[in-house]
Order: sequence, then C-alpha cells, then structure tokens
Amino acid sequence: MIVITGASSGLGAALTQLYAAENQPLLVTGRSEQKLADVIAGLTQPEQKNVQTHTADLCVAEDVSALFSRLSAPPSKVIHCAGSGYFGPIEQQAPEAINQLIHNNLTSSILVLRELVSRYRDHNVTVVVVMSTAAQAGKANESTYCAVKWAVKGLVESLRLELKGSPMKLIAVYPGGMATDFWQTSGKDINTSSFMTATEAATMLKQALIATEHGYVSDITINRG
Amino acid sequence: MIVITGASSGLGAALTQLYAAENQPLLVTGRSEQKLADVIAGLTQPEQKNVQTHTADLCVAEDVSALFSRLSAPPSKVIHCAGSGYFGPIEQQAPEAINQLIHNNLTSSILVLRELVSRYRDHNVTVVVVMSTAAQAGKANESTYCAVKWAVKGLVESLRLELKGSPMKLIAVYPGGMATDFWQTSGKDINTSSFMTATEAATMLKQALIATEHGYVSDITINRG
Amino acid sequence: MIVITGASSGLGAALTQLYAAENQPLLVTGRSEQKLADVIAGLTQPEQKNVQTHTADLCVAEDVSALFSRLSAPPSKVIHCAGSGYFGPIEQQAPEAINQLIHNNLTSSILVLRELVSRYRDHNVTVVVVMSTAAQAGKANESTYCAVKWAVKGLVESLRLELKGSPMKLIAVYPGGMATDFWQTSGKDINTSSFMTATEAATMLKQALIATEHGYVSDITINRG
Amino acid sequence: MIVITGASSGLGAALTQLYAAENQPLLVTGRSEQKLADVIAGLTQPEQKNVQTHTADLCVAEDVSALFSRLSAPPSKVIHCAGSGYFGPIEQQAPEAINQLIHNNLTSSILVLRELVSRYRDHNVTVVVVMSTAAQAGKANESTYCAVKWAVKGLVESLRLELKGSPMKLIAVYPGGMATDFWQTSGKDINTSSFMTATEAATMLKQALIATEHGYVSDITINRG
Repeated sequence: MIVITGASSGLGAALTQLYAAENQPLLVTGRSEQKLADVIAGLTQPEQKNVQTHTADLCVAEDVSALFSRLSAPPSKVIHCAGSGYFGPIEQQAPEAINQLIHNNLTSSILVLRELVSRYRDHNVTVVVVMSTAAQAGKANESTYCAVKWAVKGLVESLRLELKGSPMKLIAVYPGGMATDFWQTSGKDINTSSFMTATEAATMLKQALIATEHGYVSDITINRG
Repeated sequence: MIVITGASSGLGAALTQLYAAENQPLLVTGRSEQKLADVIAGLTQPEQKNVQTHTADLCVAEDVSALFSRLSAPPSKVIHCAGSGYFGPIEQQAPEAINQLIHNNLTSSILVLRELVSRYRDHNVTVVVVMSTAAQAGKANESTYCAVKWAVKGLVESLRLELKGSPMKLIAVYPGGMATDFWQTSGKDINTSSFMTATEAATMLKQALIATEHGYVSDITINRG
Repeated sequence: MIVITGASSGLGAALTQLYAAENQPLLVTGRSEQKLADVIAGLTQPEQKNVQTHTADLCVAEDVSALFSRLSAPPSKVIHCAGSGYFGPIEQQAPEAINQLIHNNLTSSILVLRELVSRYRDHNVTVVVVMSTAAQAGKANESTYCAVKWAVKGLVESLRLELKGSPMKLIAVYPGGMATDFWQTSGKDINTSSFMTATEAATMLKQALIATEHGYVSDITINRG
Repeated sequence: MIVITGASSGLGAALTQLYAAENQPLLVTGRSEQKLADVIAGLTQPEQKNVQTHTADLCVAEDVSALFSRLSAPPSKVIHCAGSGYFGPIEQQAPEAINQLIHNNLTSSILVLRELVSRYRDHNVTVVVVMSTAAQAGKANESTYCAVKWAVKGLVESLRLELKGSPMKLIAVYPGGMATDFWQTSGKDINTSSFMTATEAATMLKQALIATEHGYVSDITINRG
C-alpha cells in the first residue's frame, strides 16, 4: 500500500494518477472531500478499485492517527506532498495567512512524521517528504515560505539521525517551480508556461524512487529547464 | 536605544545587564512582567534609570507593533533573543508542546522581523537574530527544535535578499549550549557544568557586534570549549 | 553521443555497460588503456561497435581538449565519473598522495568543466558531475577527500550561475559508499559487503537522468541502505 | 606566541600590526622576504622587537615543518591568512594560473593544518583559518576561487570531527570583500572604495577572537556594509 498526502491537487494528484495506472493499492488523503473525489473521478474504473480516499486535516494529531489506523499493515511507501504556498514581501504578509502557512507546511509535516516514526520505525517503510527548492536557499519575497520549508528540511535531517539503524528510510524531494494551482492560490502572479507540469515532476520522482537491493535515492532535486 | 527581546532570562537577560552597565538606553521585553522585574531588580539604581521594560507576547502581531510604538526614533540595535526549547525523540513529543515551540520560536521571529522591516527598512538599524547551533545541522532528539531554528535561518537568509540595498542589517547569531534555565524548562536532563554561562556568551556576542565604518560581523557561531 | 570519464572502473565502468547494452553511441575515457580495454572486453560484440575509447590524463588541459575534439557534434551527455580516494587521519597523510588526490579529483574536474563550458555553453548538453556524499558534510579521517569533493561542489554551484540562460545543464550526483576497487586502492580497510554495487548505483543514476520536456533531476544523492 | 601566515599583505599584515602594537610575541611568515621586511619596517622599533619573520612556501611540506620548528613551545594562536585570488569566466581561465590558485589556497591549507594537528593536537592551540565568503556560496566568475575556498571549508569541518575531544580549536573566518592588493593581483577590475580596509577586518576579527573561560567564537563572517 502506498499512502499519498496532498493528493487532491498538484504533485500529489499526479502521483495518484501514475500509481493508480499501475494498479498499485493506494490510500490518498486531502482536506477536501470534493477535490479528492474529483481526482478519483479522473481515473478509469479499474484504476479506481485500488484507491481508497480519506479526508483529514493533517494539523490535527488525531486526524493523522486515524489516517494510518485505516491500514491493516505497514505501507510500503508514504509520499507526503501536502503543503501550500504564500508569497510576497514580508511587510505585506498577513499574520493569519502566515499562521496558515506554518500549519499547512510545518505542523502537518511534524505530525505526519511523528506518527510514522511512532508506528513504523521498525518496519521497512519508505517515507518520501516533498519540500521545494525553497528549502535549500533563501529567496526574496518567499521569506515565510522558505522558513517553513527550511524547517521541514531540518526536521528530516534530524529524524534521519534518530532513525539510524532503523529500516525506515526518509527520502527528501525538492521540486522547483511546477505549473499547478499552487501559484494561483498563493497570490503570486507568475507566468508558468515554461514550468514543469505536475505530471512531469511526478514521472521523474516516481522513476527516482525505484530502489535497488542495497541502495536508494535519498535526496532529489527536480528543476525546470 | 537598544531593544532586547527575551530579556527575562538567559542570553537576553545577560545582554541587558552588560548594556545597562554601560548606561545604554534600553527597551527590554519578555512575556512575564515578574521575571522582567526580577532582571531589573538585579541592576544598580543608576543602571535602572536607562532601562524601560515592556511585556509582550511576540506571537501576537498587535503586541509586536505596540512594543516598537514605544520608541520615538528608530533603535540602533534590536537583539531578538526570545525563544524556548523542547526536546526528546519525536514519537514522545506532545502536539500541544510542539505548537508552543513553533509559536515561541518561529511565529514570534516572523512577526518581529515583519514589524522591523515594515518600520525601519530605510533606517540604519542593526537587527540581531539569536538562533542556535541547532539551526545549522540536524540533531537527534532535537528534531522539532532544529525545525524551528532552521526556519528562522531560512527566514533571515531570505530577508537579507529582500533588504538588498537597504541600510538595515541582519546579523545571525548561533550560540551552542549555554548553562541557563532553558534546559530545565525544556525537559532535557543534561549536565551543564562545562557549558558557557549566558554572561560569557553575551560578552562574546557584544564584542562581536562592534562594527567598523565599512564592515560588520554578519554571522557568528559561539561554542563552548 | 554520451561521453563517460573514469570509465575504466567503478561507476564509470558500470554506466558504460548499461548504456552500451542499449546500443547508445559512447566515447569512454580513462587513464589506463589496459583497463579501458578490459571494460570493453566485457561487452558483447554488437555492444562494442558503438563504443569508442580514448585514454587521457584529465589533469592535462591538452588531453582534455583532445578528448572532445574526437567528437564531430556536441554530445548529448557527459558523465564525469573520474576521481580517486585517499583516506586516514590527516597527520598520517603523505604530501605526495595529497597532491595526487587534488589532481585526480579537483584539477581534472576544473579542466573538464572548463573545456565543456568553452565548447558547448550554447548547446543542449547535459553535464553530469559525479561527486560523493563526502561533498555534503565533513567526515573524520576523510578530511582531504572531503576537501576536494567540496571543491567540486563549489565549482558546480558557481558554474550554474555562470551558465544562467544557457541550454547547458549541470547535474550534481552524490553517491554514498559503493563496493568498488576504490576502497582497496584508497588505503581504507572497510567491509563493503552491504554496500551498493557500482551497477546498482549506475542503474539508479541512469533512471534519474531521464528528463522530461520541461524538467530534469538536477541533484541526486544515492545512498546504501 | 602568535603565528600569522600570509603576513606580507592584506589581512595578515593588518593583524601583524594590531598584535605588534600590543607587544604580542609574533612569528610572521610569507613567501617574499622583501614584502615581510616592508611590513616590519612599518612597525615602531619597540614593536619590532617582538616580531620574528620567516619566509616559507607553504605548499612545500618541509617549509611548513621548518616554520613551526622555530618555536620552542606550542603557539597560543595560529592565524592562517595565506591565500590568493584568481577570477573570471571559467573558459577564460588559464590552466597554469588555476594550478597556482589551488596551490596557494588549498595545498597550503592542507599542509599547514596537517602540520598543526600533527604537532599540537594535544595542546591548547587556537587555529584560525581565514577563508572568504566565497567558501559559503557559489559565485559567477569566481568558480575556481569558490572551489578552493569550499575545499578549505570541507577540510576544516572534517578536521573538527577528527579533533573531537582535543584541546586544539579550529576557528573558521569568512571575510567578504576587503580593499586590498588582492584584487589588483587577481585580475578583477573592481571599485573597492566602499570595501572594508584590511585593518577594519583585522580589528573585528581580533575582537571576536577574545574567548571566555568556557566558550569561544568558532565561526565568523565579516561583511562590508
């Protein structure tokens, strides 16, 4: 079973489509039941059979726990794509939207990883944490977005040390700009015509996640160009 | 005028003492009126005359704004020391305490820097952001603490780019383990007898903050040993 | 045409085998004619037909130039695997061996990238620079090896900025410990039975290098485990 | 005794002047006997009495060893300032000058640190390694300079791990652009009128090097502005 968070749009939705097309059993999650239903509706009927949906607010620990309680066995992979953007010069950012940004990206990632380590640290589970190239360098007019993405990177690097000797693997993924709804909802007016589609990024990510017996890709940056 | 946040304990309190001993005009802030009063009570009477206190919850944008509205002119320096610790294996961390950690370290830093950029970006103000060596590398059993400190570092690096050409300077400070109350309240049982005192760290930091006409120390890591 | 340096052993040899098996036209290079011949001898006859070999000392600018002068058109990919290891506490390292290490890893990488930028900066050429996880963090008893690998990383990051707007792409690859001859010749006594084979690493790398129309994997870390 | 390398110009010469003015016993070194003599000639006669000079090529292990054999006891501090610059687009750089750059910055640093660890790892010696902000980020048209500076940083980070538990301390210093001869000799045409003077940088560095009983500044970045 593969679990995908943030599956209602962008990279999460694209990964859902790619894995569903291979008839992989999936548990996909998002905040909006309607949006999840729309993603499922885009699949063929045989593809749909292997896909379960579960709405959850990943900023609520009980929701995160309930999500993984759906599984009768440890998943093979968890791909954590959930997140949101918020941009602009810091003096123009609103406190409420900043809090939302922190919740959607940092709080959710902490709670998801906390749950996964708690449940599966002794199992062969691959946890893929999708961040952004904003986790790797500072960027003007993305200060709070960089902050929450750097935070998730610091979390992942620390947990790798806590998981030393555990069969659980943490894979860090840093995609650059994709042409998704993300930009519209984040208030950044930007021409995305030369950007990767979410499907392109998902295709490269899925390829890179194919491990071998003694090795795996642990960190991957995907850029447009 | 020098503004010091987190002045009720640790490095903030030690800096308050050092600058007060030089009769520098100070505005110092903390969450607890009582603790701030205790710090002031430790000063001599002539020292006290130059120190104003102001209690504020830096996670509330209005409080942050009210703090700086006390000033009739831009401060020469703002030293942002406020923060708190929370440690342990991630699976043993409580969601409520994690939220508190995020507020005390990340939300407060964003709101303080947002206010400072908004008010003083065209003034010659030196903003000193005190983080931790936990902002520079992952650490086992400090995953969420590293997360919030990496976040502040990402914020600072981004704002440096937004402030290009502005006379406002951002100084990043990374102290290693100090022997302060911090450890007691963070739930980490640790022998701190060989650690720096807050006064030692404050002394080195204050020394390093002395700029010259064309240059300044922009980043400084202070370690024990 | 794909050009592979360091093709006489390790990852370079493994990549040669994988691409040759797909009948990709290859130009492969190494310092030792005999070792290159051995790698070719391991291919089937139809595979051999597409593979040219060229011995070169990549620390000599004229050799590097002669290598690429063999090509009648810009290559699609250049995969720079050449390098060597040298380990141990710094006080036990010999000056002559240190110089050799610098030449084999840093001088060669500078000269290869200098030649590629000079010839192909206006062409759609993908340049893959294989470093090591030693380029990403300090490691005890690998100080000089880390030094030369960090150097190549700094070179690549700088050249990415020089190549802004150019169709030439730089891909950074950081493999962790592989079970190759590398260790024997580097003087580090180590049990490599749980390490990736070079073929495993090459398989994952080759997979990750498959780009899409608007995107590509720009940085990839491959670890054992 | 304080040992200063690269003392014949720039930061090394400025530090020599500042420490000599305090009558600190000094052993200063450079490649050019004449230039060293000129620096000494700039001191007052009482200052000169405490300063020994020693010409050495730090790229030659025997020279490095001979330098420290001059000392009858372990030095309190070694400040390694020696280095040179070389800039421009990579395709315009000459192989011979690149080799020189590698020698002057990387080979010399390895040999100096190797000698110091070998002689003094059990002594309370503070080793200050002066790099550049070019060690911290890639820069266009400084690719090979960044490479050698990143190398020294990787070396320092690795040696810190090798020196765990040793009383020897490694301090990393990253100065930004100073107005020194450095630029003239490096072939970069640049207006340095707003840059720090070497004396300004030396003043700030010297201040930051004042340690306390349990702590010290381990990393410091000095910028103009």
